[in-house]
Amino acid sequence: MLLSKSFIPILKNNPSEAKIKSHQLMLRVGMIKQASAGIYSWLPLGFKVMKKIEAIVRQEQNKIGAQEILMPTIQSSEIWKESGRYDDYGEEMLRIKDRQNREMLYGPTNEEQVTEIFRSSFKSYKSLPQLLYHIQWKFRDEIRPRFGIMRGREFYMKDAYSFDVTDEEAFYSYNKFFLSYLRTFKRLSLTAIPMAADTGPIGGNLSHEFIILADTGESKIFTDKRIFDLTSEGTNLEKSSLEEMRKKYEQFYSVTDEKFNKDEFEKMVLEENRLITKGIEVGHIFYFGDKYSKAMDTAVDLPGGKKDFVKMGSYGIGVSRLVGAIIEAKYDDKNEIMKWPLSVAPYDIALIPMINKNDNSALEKANNINSVLIKNNIEAIIDDTDENYSSKIKKMNLIGAPYQIVIGKKSEGDLLEFKEADGETQNLSLDKIIKLITKQKAPN
Amino acid sequence: MLLSKSFIPILKNNPSEAKIKSHQLMLRVGMIKQASAGIYSWLPLGFKVMKKIEAIVRQEQNKIGAQEILMPTIQSSEIWKESGRYDDYGEEMLRIKDRQNREMLYGPTNEEQVTEIFRSSFKSYKSLPQLLYHIQWKFRDEIRPRFGIMRGREFYMKDAYSFDVTDEEAFYSYNKFFLSYLRTFKRLSLTAIPMAADTGPIGGNLSHEFIILADTGESKIFTDKRIFDLTSEGTNLEKSSLEEMRKKYEQFYSVTDEKFNKDEFEKMVLEENRLITKGIEVGHIFYFGDKYSKAMDTAVDLPGGKKDFVKMGSYGIGVSRLVGAIIEAKYDDKNEIMKWPLSVAPYDIALIPMINKNDNSALEKANNINSVLIKNNIEAIIDDTDENYSSKIKKMNLIGAPYQIVIGKKSEGDLLEFKEADGETQNLSLDKIIKLITKQKAPN
Repeated sequence: MLLSKSFIPILKNNPSEAKIKSHQLMLRVGMIKQASAGIYSWLPLGFKVMKKIEAIVRQEQNKIGAQEILMPTIQSSEIWKESGRYDDYGEEMLRIKDRQNREMLYGPTNEEQVTEIFRSSFKSYKSLPQLLYHIQWKFRDEIRPRFGIMRGREFYMKDAYSFDVTDEEAFYSYNKFFLSYLRTFKRLSLTAIPMAADTGPIGGNLSHEFIILADTGESKIFTDKRIFDLTSEGTNLEKSSLEEMRKKYEQFYSVTDEKFNKDEFEKMVLEENRLITKGIEVGHIFYFGDKYSKAMDTAVDLPGGKKDFVKMGSYGIGVSRLVGAIIEAKYDDKNEIMKWPLSVAPYDIALIPMINKNDNSALEKANNINSVLIKNNIEAIIDDTDENYSSKIKKMNLIGAPYQIVIGKKSEGDLLEFKEADGETQNLSLDKIIKLITKQKAPN
Repeated sequence: MLLSKSFIPILKNNPSEAKIKSHQLMLRVGMIKQASAGIYSWLPLGFKVMKKIEAIVRQEQNKIGAQEILMPTIQSSEIWKESGRYDDYGEEMLRIKDRQNREMLYGPTNEEQVTEIFRSSFKSYKSLPQLLYHIQWKFRDEIRPRFGIMRGREFYMKDAYSFDVTDEEAFYSYNKFFLSYLRTFKRLSLTAIPMAADTGPIGGNLSHEFIILADTGESKIFTDKRIFDLTSEGTNLEKSSLEEMRKKYEQFYSVTDEKFNKDEFEKMVLEENRLITKGIEVGHIFYFGDKYSKAMDTAVDLPGGKKDFVKMGSYGIGVSRLVGAIIEAKYDDKNEIMKWPLSVAPYDIALIPMINKNDNSALEKANNINSVLIKNNIEAIIDDTDENYSSKIKKMNLIGAPYQIVIGKKSEGDLLEFKEADGETQNLSLDKIIKLITKQKAPN
């Protein structure tokens, strides 16, 4: 892609209204544009990153056997009255009257709607477990939207729901999502730690938030720092393997502030291992048993002829928020260098030819390199403007392709000036560069 | 995918509330479920088809150089007041007050919003043309939603917008979309004919609807039937080639009823070529010059120092409606056989093993065949239930994989009982079947 043909409206300076670095970068480099308070349009650069995150989230949901559906954004108030949340939810719910004066709302979450789908389709324990998810826009009418898409009003979320007949089976479903979340965040190059958390307006008594460390985070966390060394590696989808994984994580104290207990913390965690810091919530999972199924009369036949309300959990990942969270984790705002993880980078590599008025040879060389890259499934952005070296590098550092090739007059022979966005220049052949990137791109 | 693990809630009979065959099939086979009047949830089968349609629409937009963005569903009323449409739009616009009592609305279309994005980013003719599109949910509060997702209230639409400095350049952009629409519908196996049409609330004086023939369609059309023999083949993105294509189509009389003129029709079309029938609108393109750019003060610098309002067009494809339109075109409701075009089929092939209580060998064979198919990128659904032959075939005919393999006791040796959903059984080797499907899947 030629930069001159791309709709990437870069600002010279940081916009003054942005207080945190993800909001600054996203406005600065034209990833988003505010439409109204807490509501954003996604411009091509931001859109590309969000779509790549969405694809990874989707793949990891499919891998645990969850099936994708798509529920509408506008819901009827009736099901919310059934569950009792229509009154409880308060002003964050965007309430709407249609032309027939019916009470509707813009879904802030989908427990009711998915329960309604479930109860009209499934009657027997034989069809369980069911894991259903969708990736859809949500609206929460925050009183004070802030930090760009990190706490916007209209946001893009993956929410999944599990349906089982017993608590034991339901915990098994819960653990599958626990694993899929660890895998998802790992593919996004994020270290997201599961923390025991409060269930809030969703309800229930078991819940984990997945949190990445960031000074600008709004969640306060208390943890045994050894939890950061854990991985989900070696865990498979067998019940026992998942239980092992849960135990491994839960041996270390790790909670958000609503769950914090000073005595417990100090008793369980040696002083040298204590970490009290801030983080960003990127995922949240809940087990709430029959809270909704009971209120909405959603039962299935059990073996033997009895009926029971199904046991449910729900599992959310903030897809749009993750764009900001990755920036918070990876953006070096001092040096103004963004290096996207290759798995979600808008471009794999930036080609930076030095163009003079009377000499297009570097641009031609860049175009030739690009043809070879395309054949190897590597997506490049070419800065074909005639700006000077330092302003080109500055722009490309903000756009954030993880790799760069500078093509100048000195570039002769087969060796290219290749560097990682935040690294040192090396002279490598195109062939070596392709091998290096292809290897990095292979899914882990 | 095993049918027993899939969320495909098939009904025994046609639901009585559905009046047209797409609505009947979609409810019958569990592609959608109504959430409230004119608002639907997409269940896995329907979702898969819609996503495949979306992918084709996206590819064809990208091929003409359009860039994808994503505008929010909830818009501020301010930009609609600027354009003058806030009052004009009437009750079909879903109007919302947020908790701060600000007037918002659920976007029925995006001319205003995209103009606002354009004017804040582009100042010079040098950046033009710009072709921007997004694929997003829209809401139109129809007084009488009907026919399922064909005339629903919440619907999924691709809408694109072009920005140019002169009428001539703007027509060039218009023609690019004209071509991309012909290509898109062809890949969906639809014969969609461009018809001169009224511009309605969008405005402007040049417009085409793309219409497929269907008795259940809501558009009345008057056409020279020779237009059905035309194709876009041989057309490329050069200005002159696109003009040729437009001329080729416009030599034949072809209009919707708002544009119909009896004298003209009878003068221009020989009696034997006249076709007066009904159809379904699947795409609509508009050229409206500076209607929005003038109202919203959106001008760019011209060469020489003057400024002028940009010339705009807009281009819509109903992505969710296309699911229904394809069913209207392809579903044989007498014999209850749906055969999806392979390009958007939820599954490429159905494997139908005959399973007896004491004999699982046919299911094992199906699983083995499936492993080979997966390696060849062919997606199968396996009916692993123990129902009888005719009920299995009935179900699979509704689900609509274009190909079927029946695996019974008689299936011995290397030859398989293979058929197209609506065709005759042939005995073919798996190897031949794979070659046949792979050839059909290759993009045209």
